[in-house]
Amino acid sequence: MRQPAGKLLLFGATGDLSQRMLLPSLYGLHADGLLPDGLTITCTARSEYDDAGFRGFARESLEKFLPADRKDDSAVASFLERVFYQRLDASKTEGFAALAEKLGDISDGLAIFLSTAPSLFGPTIKGLQSAGLTGDNVRIGLEKPLGVDLASSRIVNDIVAEAFPEDRTFRIDHYLGKETVQNILALRFGNSLFEPVWNAQGIENVQITVSETVGLEGRAGYYDDVGALRDMVQNHMLQLLALIAMEPPARFDGTSVRDEKVKVLRSLRPIAGADVPNLTVTGQYGGGAVKGEIVRSYDTDLEKSSDTETFVAIKAHVDNWRWHGVPFYLRTGKRLAERRSEIVITFKPVPHSIFEDRGGALKPNVLVIRLQPEEYIQLLVMAKEPGLDRDGIHLKEVPLNLSLEHEFAGSRRRIAYERLFLDLIEGDPTLFVRRDEVEAQWAWIDAIREGWKTGNVKPKPYASGSWGPSAAIALTERDGVTWNE
Amino acid sequence: MRQPAGKLLLFGATGDLSQRMLLPSLYGLHADGLLPDGLTITCTARSEYDDAGFRGFARESLEKFLPADRKDDSAVASFLERVFYQRLDASKTEGFAALAEKLGDISDGLAIFLSTAPSLFGPTIKGLQSAGLTGDNVRIGLEKPLGVDLASSRIVNDIVAEAFPEDRTFRIDHYLGKETVQNILALRFGNSLFEPVWNAQGIENVQITVSETVGLEGRAGYYDDVGALRDMVQNHMLQLLALIAMEPPARFDGTSVRDEKVKVLRSLRPIAGADVPNLTVTGQYGGGAVKGEIVRSYDTDLEKSSDTETFVAIKAHVDNWRWHGVPFYLRTGKRLAERRSEIVITFKPVPHSIFEDRGGALKPNVLVIRLQPEEYIQLLVMAKEPGLDRDGIHLKEVPLNLSLEHEFAGSRRRIAYERLFLDLIEGDPTLFVRRDEVEAQWAWIDAIREGWKTGNVKPKPYASGSWGPSAAIALTERDGVTWNE
Repeated sequence: MRQPAGKLLLFGATGDLSQRMLLPSLYGLHADGLLPDGLTITCTARSEYDDAGFRGFARESLEKFLPADRKDDSAVASFLERVFYQRLDASKTEGFAALAEKLGDISDGLAIFLSTAPSLFGPTIKGLQSAGLTGDNVRIGLEKPLGVDLASSRIVNDIVAEAFPEDRTFRIDHYLGKETVQNILALRFGNSLFEPVWNAQGIENVQITVSETVGLEGRAGYYDDVGALRDMVQNHMLQLLALIAMEPPARFDGTSVRDEKVKVLRSLRPIAGADVPNLTVTGQYGGGAVKGEIVRSYDTDLEKSSDTETFVAIKAHVDNWRWHGVPFYLRTGKRLAERRSEIVITFKPVPHSIFEDRGGALKPNVLVIRLQPEEYIQLLVMAKEPGLDRDGIHLKEVPLNLSLEHEFAGSRRRIAYERLFLDLIEGDPTLFVRRDEVEAQWAWIDAIREGWKTGNVKPKPYASGSWGPSAAIALTERDGVTWNE
Repeated sequence: MRQPAGKLLLFGATGDLSQRMLLPSLYGLHADGLLPDGLTITCTARSEYDDAGFRGFARESLEKFLPADRKDDSAVASFLERVFYQRLDASKTEGFAALAEKLGDISDGLAIFLSTAPSLFGPTIKGLQSAGLTGDNVRIGLEKPLGVDLASSRIVNDIVAEAFPEDRTFRIDHYLGKETVQNILALRFGNSLFEPVWNAQGIENVQITVSETVGLEGRAGYYDDVGALRDMVQNHMLQLLALIAMEPPARFDGTSVRDEKVKVLRSLRPIAGADVPNLTVTGQYGGGAVKGEIVRSYDTDLEKSSDTETFVAIKAHVDNWRWHGVPFYLRTGKRLAERRSEIVITFKPVPHSIFEDRGGALKPNVLVIRLQPEEYIQLLVMAKEPGLDRDGIHLKEVPLNLSLEHEFAGSRRRIAYERLFLDLIEGDPTLFVRRDEVEAQWAWIDAIREGWKTGNVKPKPYASGSWGPSAAIALTERDGVTWNE
């Protein structure tokens, strides 16, 4: 029987993610009455604050990052009453005893959230162990990055596993907290219409795009070590792919859903060796204009020359019965033409047209699942163009729209972390990433990186404000497929 | 090679249908430049008019029945220049020579449209023959009713067939001229998404409703002889059923489409004998209120007592592989709660729900094809209800809407007869009803009527403004199915 935790412990509480996302998320849950009564939120970081000082810091963060219509002085005040602060240098074990003392009785359960540099994971776990904060009723949530490749991710996971068994380890991929991502499951398994065509017989190809218009945004040091493949594909995009491609789980629970996802991730056809330059495209943004503003090249942003990719496109396959021969095209990048996260599923064309062909008017059905910046689902179908068509019936592509914002007007669009915090507090692991998933993801990513290295693949320059290097266009056009733009 | 006719000959030109629909349709085609250059429209009826007099009559009809935004004095004037009139008593052969003289040279083809009482069909055909107006380049369009049962329809068709072979006989069912009805074909055969589930494996049931709020509307004599079954089901509703149920035709042409439709009509499971009272419900409206107005009973409207049904509901089956076990529920009636023509296709529920059942929140997919009063297509799907659902994912039914009026804004909603006139003039038979279809329809209808007679089934009274007798509700509820209301 799952038991909601009575206390929450947040590491990295003064960081950027905490200010922008975590504190606003916790406030949102509090304001809506969704946090368990009496739940306290103990925050730690290296900064010198006492409780009152940190509450001032937290209030400023909320003031800055909450949308205007969510600001409510009395709700903020009552939220801050839950918040406590303990200064801690997590790299040293010494401070953890004081932290445990600050927390007090944790017999009603403790949920920990680590939003710190991965280098601190090991010392933090040790410190928690030393202070008796890793017992059976303690769960831990981990923010990415969990390693930089399979080997280092195993090390991180092993360190965590020493103190926390898998069922108490909650790896966060915040994409899984998004409404529209969960809607993929609702759409696939709540409707009988899609499943019969949700396979190689019915689907021609799948495109997943996560494009950003921003450049480095002050994350230069981190990003240049990581690149687009590891920053976006290894986690978020492979999770999206797994949700699209997985077999129907028997139940919506952590074991069933993740068993099916990991099967997909392990079925990804390895891209390695000589295949790598054919099936992947990398790019790095040059100067250009994005949304009417002149922007600088990556090298200039970085203030040094670099071989890190800020763009990657991949043609992937899932080698199982359901997806035989169906390409999954992935692309992500910075300084692209548009900010957009979407999944585009193109169905097979009709096998035979009973209508006269008029210059390709008959288009295949397309399902668009848009995650950002808007959230909607759109099904493109062919309908009769009104009019007294003289030679049969003229067809036109028209959209069937499901606007989540419109359909569910009045329901607030939540931060993905709200859902994930609540699941962590309540102990529901379904929307967290299991170790075997992470490792399958890394194994596939590592082979690609190895191929870049041995093949001496360097990122191709692309103009800021474009859709990436022209080779990325060629990657799909060779197959007669056009990116959805 | 099909050749557009150079002349149009219209019988029954002073009748109600002509004034409301036929003249406005021809005007609409003319105003949009769709009639062949030089096409003349010769009108006949018993009334005493010369060309100028009838043009005055036609102008008044247009004035009265055209929507304001379609009225254009100069277009009306140029339209009327095409119009000629010949007084004719079609029951006598004598006048046809003068009619032929009026028409003059018909070597560029003649299209005839009969909008007269069926009793005049025989004499009219004889008259046309006598005057040499039935040659190879003459086509004839026939308005319903074509008989009142199989035997009498065969007699009518035989009479027509003496002068016009089947490929020059165009039987009108004006429902086939409606945009949304043709859209059924576009939707089914222009999209790969629907066909895989368009069968007994994918569809739970089909409902076809044609409900009217009006009562007799001055058609008392005709209607009381005919009743709802023959007025609506025998023609329009069985045609809709055939379009929904037919196999994919090889081409959109008269032979392919009608071959497939007639196969469906011949596969209708006969409803006869003791089955009739179980599978059909008849009703007759009593007094009541429709849209806030007190209305009278059918008997009072009719000024006599009658056993004619003004409502009928039928549970039908198509006995072939595709539709094994799928009920087609049909209902139509006068003085019902709402004016509505629609086809509602309910798909099978998902075979297994991965989500927790919450009081039947998970609903099957539904496709609504609405013909009247609005034209739209709506697909009901399940999506995730936004929010931090605590026990899994909460689903909610949401509509994907294809509003034809909105999507194709700016394109005028045409009268169904515009399309049919143009097809008749141009000689395209696809949207007309072939003799074998009519006879299959009658055979099925006759058996039901025979069952009513032998079973002494009398229509059940229902309150005006309701959805018909409660037995019609029971007809579907026995199967666990609810009419879409």
